[in-house]
Amino acid sequence: MLCSYHLILVVRLFDIKFSIVTYYFYYIIFSGLDTYYSNMKVVTCIAPVNIAVIKYWGKRDEDLILPLNDSLSGTLSTEFMCAKTSILASPSLQENRFWLNGIEQSFNNRRLESCLKEVKRRANQALPHLNWNISICSKNNFPTAAGLASSAAGYACLVYALATLYEIQGDISGIARIGSGSACRSVYGGWVQWCKGTTSDGGDCIARQIAPASHWPEMRVLILVVNDARKKYSSTSGMRSSVETSQLLKYRASEIVPHRLSEITEAIKNKDFEKFAEITMKDSNQFHAVCLDTYPPCIYMNDVSHCIVDVIHAYNEYKTCNKVAYTFDAGPNACLYLLESEVEEVLSVINYVFSPPTANSEEYVKGLTVSIKTISQKYY
Amino acid sequence: MLCSYHLILVVRLFDIKFSIVTYYFYYIIFSGLDTYYSNMKVVTCIAPVNIAVIKYWGKRDEDLILPLNDSLSGTLSTEFMCAKTSILASPSLQENRFWLNGIEQSFNNRRLESCLKEVKRRANQALPHLNWNISICSKNNFPTAAGLASSAAGYACLVYALATLYEIQGDISGIARIGSGSACRSVYGGWVQWCKGTTSDGGDCIARQIAPASHWPEMRVLILVVNDARKKYSSTSGMRSSVETSQLLKYRASEIVPHRLSEITEAIKNKDFEKFAEITMKDSNQFHAVCLDTYPPCIYMNDVSHCIVDVIHAYNEYKTCNKVAYTFDAGPNACLYLLESEVEEVLSVINYVFSPPTANSEEYVKGLTVSIKTISQKYY
Repeated sequence: MLCSYHLILVVRLFDIKFSIVTYYFYYIIFSGLDTYYSNMKVVTCIAPVNIAVIKYWGKRDEDLILPLNDSLSGTLSTEFMCAKTSILASPSLQENRFWLNGIEQSFNNRRLESCLKEVKRRANQALPHLNWNISICSKNNFPTAAGLASSAAGYACLVYALATLYEIQGDISGIARIGSGSACRSVYGGWVQWCKGTTSDGGDCIARQIAPASHWPEMRVLILVVNDARKKYSSTSGMRSSVETSQLLKYRASEIVPHRLSEITEAIKNKDFEKFAEITMKDSNQFHAVCLDTYPPCIYMNDVSHCIVDVIHAYNEYKTCNKVAYTFDAGPNACLYLLESEVEEVLSVINYVFSPPTANSEEYVKGLTVSIKTISQKYY
Repeated sequence: MLCSYHLILVVRLFDIKFSIVTYYFYYIIFSGLDTYYSNMKVVTCIAPVNIAVIKYWGKRDEDLILPLNDSLSGTLSTEFMCAKTSILASPSLQENRFWLNGIEQSFNNRRLESCLKEVKRRANQALPHLNWNISICSKNNFPTAAGLASSAAGYACLVYALATLYEIQGDISGIARIGSGSACRSVYGGWVQWCKGTTSDGGDCIARQIAPASHWPEMRVLILVVNDARKKYSSTSGMRSSVETSQLLKYRASEIVPHRLSEITEAIKNKDFEKFAEITMKDSNQFHAVCLDTYPPCIYMNDVSHCIVDVIHAYNEYKTCNKVAYTFDAGPNACLYLLESEVEEVLSVINYVFSPPTANSEEYVKGLTVSIKTISQKYY
């Protein structure tokens, strides 16, 4: 009996892109700062996580973060998982500073500086606060760097907050992209495609919504947290190594993904869950196959992950059609796409196979309210 | 600390293809039979296991067992791992019978019957015992169907015993192939290539020795038995599923393997261990990548297997060049190719990382004699 997961999140998809919230969050960190800075501007934003169903893996340009292939994701509701960023700008600040989850980081970070530079380039140069120093305070309410798309939400949030602070207009997904590739997909709600683009400057390498969440309101996502430890290999170095060493990656990016992307887009437009699930699972497996074909191999899934895969295939077989789709990012945690009508039964099966660490299993389920039944052995 | 492996075999490569041994083995099973059958013929053979460095995965013809790509393996010494088959032919036998590891199996087995038919077709039709019934008794001295190439050795042994019984001449690898694809490689010693061939009848789909074991006498193989349970998915159904569903398999077979095969052949001819090891590890990883790209995925390696991979890469990095190569067949057990000079140190590292179940670790090491030192933490 496996018992390695310790949290399940039940989430819906979401259309609201970002929320500009009050000063509240910033004040938690810097309470009383307003008494020091009479002349200041503060913005606070929250941004969503996205879970890809066609995976991004491999860049054709490392500096501009231009991908080898298009990718596609669902944007999750910010109710239970989100990044939150506050930025304070003031002429009184001595230097730029940056905190992540309460710990100060160096501001001398190429990606952060690139985003800031690009937002400022697009701002009205007459803005009085354009040259003030800033303090950035970011926080994720979920594990960082454990393959739960934390950098995507984090950079989307940072760029949106900067764009708000400097009052820039138009698409900002291209700016979020230079922070963290898949962050560009967190800039829009619902179902979002990141187009790899064709120009060498990345001008057409942006995200676009292909369908709002309201198009398929029954869609739910379960996040099974198998391990919230920091992952062994970062996505950045893993994908660089794949580009350098995996011949299968090149074939996947050029020959397989374009076809899959149009098929899954069609499946989403037709609300064809059977097809959507098949492509989602195949693409997750192929992404991890490419990681395994990398030299040395990058292994993100573990025995528990593979057990979840087996359980989902067994469940779908029992139901005689695909009722649940798994997908794994660069970590062992599973994300399950399924319709609302299946949530209760799937959670019951998962609780049966992976008995929770305590008798009260409901403690381990967060997010939308679901009742979980104790099931008999009929599935196995 | 992991402790899931429970046996390490230390083996050398071998040139002797087969041994025709005495009646002894047969008599263990059917002692006293000669008093019943005054008119009988008995042959007993032993045959070696082979460990592929360029993997066979996927058939272009299911009936004739014609592969999608060439493969290449080393043939292990029969000292510690082998298949043993005795065949008794007698006009007094009422029917054909077949025992595997002491348990009677149905003789109504298409592959077994195909091998028997083909050997008889090539025999001198005037042989008096050609139409006598036979009893076949096979035994492996290592786990069956746990991804340790048991069917390869088993069918090679069966076909060699049949060929001896019916006195046929010439290459028999094509007959072994129709028993179990990779069995054709166990028909020769040293380094053996299985050529996929081009004709539709499989006439040119045979094995050939590319170098004898004596060409590289320092080569050793360590077999780390992680799990000797029967594997979850048979190779036959797994590779059929891969052919049907994995687009990466087709690309691998047609575009990647031909190049790798000529590179590793060159490396073996030049005794270039660095290059040999790199290709061996890459090909093992790519084979498992294709299994993962299969739908539903076939997972043969587990967390212990991946830990062994990590240890080998760490060891090679510490040594600043490839001193050991891992390869995994359709199961979690690791086969390590390395030169004799490295055996002691590698075994010590493995014993350090995977502490054996008892204090006396040497009990877990079988095969060639090796002294294992207790090592300090310098590697980690």
